[in-house]
Amino acid sequence: MTTTTHAIAVPSPGAPLAPTTIERRDLRPDDVLIDIKFAGICHSDIHQAKEDWGQAIFPMVPGHEIAGVVAAVGPDVTKYRVGDRVGVGCMVDSCGECEYCRAGTEQFCVKGNVQTYNGVGFDGENTYGGYSRQIVVKEAFVCRIPDGIGLDVAAPLLCAGITTYSPLRRWGAGPGKKVAVIGLGGLGHMAVKLAAAMGAEVTVLSQSLKKQEDGLRLGAKDYYATSDEGTFEALRGRFDLVLNTVSAKLPVDAYLGLLRVGGAMVNVGAPGEPLSYNAFSLLGGNKVLAGSMIGGIAETQEMLDFCAKHGIGAEIETISADQVNEAYERVENSDVRYRFVIDTATIGA
Amino acid sequence: MTTTTHAIAVPSPGAPLAPTTIERRDLRPDDVLIDIKFAGICHSDIHQAKEDWGQAIFPMVPGHEIAGVVAAVGPDVTKYRVGDRVGVGCMVDSCGECEYCRAGTEQFCVKGNVQTYNGVGFDGENTYGGYSRQIVVKEAFVCRIPDGIGLDVAAPLLCAGITTYSPLRRWGAGPGKKVAVIGLGGLGHMAVKLAAAMGAEVTVLSQSLKKQEDGLRLGAKDYYATSDEGTFEALRGRFDLVLNTVSAKLPVDAYLGLLRVGGAMVNVGAPGEPLSYNAFSLLGGNKVLAGSMIGGIAETQEMLDFCAKHGIGAEIETISADQVNEAYERVENSDVRYRFVIDTATIGA
Repeated sequence: MTTTTHAIAVPSPGAPLAPTTIERRDLRPDDVLIDIKFAGICHSDIHQAKEDWGQAIFPMVPGHEIAGVVAAVGPDVTKYRVGDRVGVGCMVDSCGECEYCRAGTEQFCVKGNVQTYNGVGFDGENTYGGYSRQIVVKEAFVCRIPDGIGLDVAAPLLCAGITTYSPLRRWGAGPGKKVAVIGLGGLGHMAVKLAAAMGAEVTVLSQSLKKQEDGLRLGAKDYYATSDEGTFEALRGRFDLVLNTVSAKLPVDAYLGLLRVGGAMVNVGAPGEPLSYNAFSLLGGNKVLAGSMIGGIAETQEMLDFCAKHGIGAEIETISADQVNEAYERVENSDVRYRFVIDTATIGA
Repeated sequence: MTTTTHAIAVPSPGAPLAPTTIERRDLRPDDVLIDIKFAGICHSDIHQAKEDWGQAIFPMVPGHEIAGVVAAVGPDVTKYRVGDRVGVGCMVDSCGECEYCRAGTEQFCVKGNVQTYNGVGFDGENTYGGYSRQIVVKEAFVCRIPDGIGLDVAAPLLCAGITTYSPLRRWGAGPGKKVAVIGLGGLGHMAVKLAAAMGAEVTVLSQSLKKQEDGLRLGAKDYYATSDEGTFEALRGRFDLVLNTVSAKLPVDAYLGLLRVGGAMVNVGAPGEPLSYNAFSLLGGNKVLAGSMIGGIAETQEMLDFCAKHGIGAEIETISADQVNEAYERVENSDVRYRFVIDTATIGA
């Protein structure tokens, strides 16, 4: 037995999204049925819809920035009740037993976590994401969205928020620390808001000064254009942390030069091509080059609570289902400030 | 007024070392005059003697692994008395006022530290290193060699010891941690001894199994040949820390694959050519690529005390002054187990 729900799907690699219906499983004892209200559009949705990252599963219903309201719960669910405001991010299951799951880093589950879409559950069924009216998710992978945050601006927190929150925390963003954020897009704008709320002094490093006003409004103290050669000299040795949110092939050594002694450059964006660096750029200053991939469920909840406390949501442009293909084009042209969010009530309406 | 002392110098770039005499300054109030007993030969001595790392100062008296006995002290010296066993490493001065000096990381002094040789002091005088009978060093850059360590096996600790001790400490080598050491040379053999003494489980990753017996005797639990392709598959995801002590151009992604989630690969060796990595190798497991350069004076003292407590010295081959050129050739051919140490009594004898 399953429930039919409206969705928007990519029928084949690179094809436009189109309305469809999908089946959601009946509730297992520990499942939560969620009436999705908003779903963010992440750039990785587009990469997967186009099979940029290797073979994908079609038809694909993208969407791993999900905010909604609990519509029903299985008999063993204890954390949520009907009517609760909840969110779902990039994962909907993991083994729960390996050391990484036990450590709250389910994204690194040794059996592989189950992706919210373009994945296969441990039951062998394909997963379908947030561009739909309803979703069924295991309680352990559902987060609570505190009352202080609108569901629309909360949706992008489930991926863009946690992806930037986790490395900012791990690498010590806070009072007295200088943090640079490379790129002011979906991830970057969240990084600016979060790092500023953590008490760090934030600088945006963007290709141009086009979004300078926004950057300062979102919490940055400084804003520099990386197309200006003088930027790298002016900011030499300044930052404790450089968070790279773009996927372009950057001149790594130049950015490492912006770090203080012991500082870290952390990548959450990843270009397809290899990057090059000189080992002396790391040695001369005990520097660090690191990567960070989303965050675990407990940390995602911590991030949502942090955002509620600090009044942080994403900057969004809300669209209807029939605007999704246009939105994809605009994301690819970096023409969004700063996240598209689909009003899922318009799906199949 | 100065004092003349015997030394071995490189007269011009790449020329053989030859006996000479040099002048050591008269003691300033905070200076210590040291009768050098042993001086280690570091691979970087050879690089600098050949100008591999850019323009150098000639004649050059190399040597920054110095162990000896205090022969005289200036009136303001409080920490040392005549007869004390002391060591000097890679630095002999720094500004003492910048944030990095105040933090005990004099190697990153914003004015630049004064190198023990191939450097220029804040007085404008060239510095000459440890391949000599005596040296005059500011008290603050002199470390105490505890009684438990022979001066001969202590000398290499002042560079090879601290270079490996510092990253092992920073990156958490200790009980319950698995540490891989790439390369079993001057640095690598110290890393094995130190990491084992810290309580970590140590694996050596060497090109071949030639030195396997040594590696296990020095404290490693496992020893693998990196020329064997199967090694990278067998050790996948195993280590908390990979310490790279070699200067060859390594396949960085393959080594990152050996790290556990959250693990770090730290480079203390640096090839001249750029290295290449795929950002996904860092993202997929929140991994770290870092550099580490020697250590501060306080940490060098801590390392010496640690070595004394654990009975650790370098594995050395003691040579006389007339064997230094031959020793350089053998270092370049990796034909030393594991550090040459010059008996400085043979200089000018």
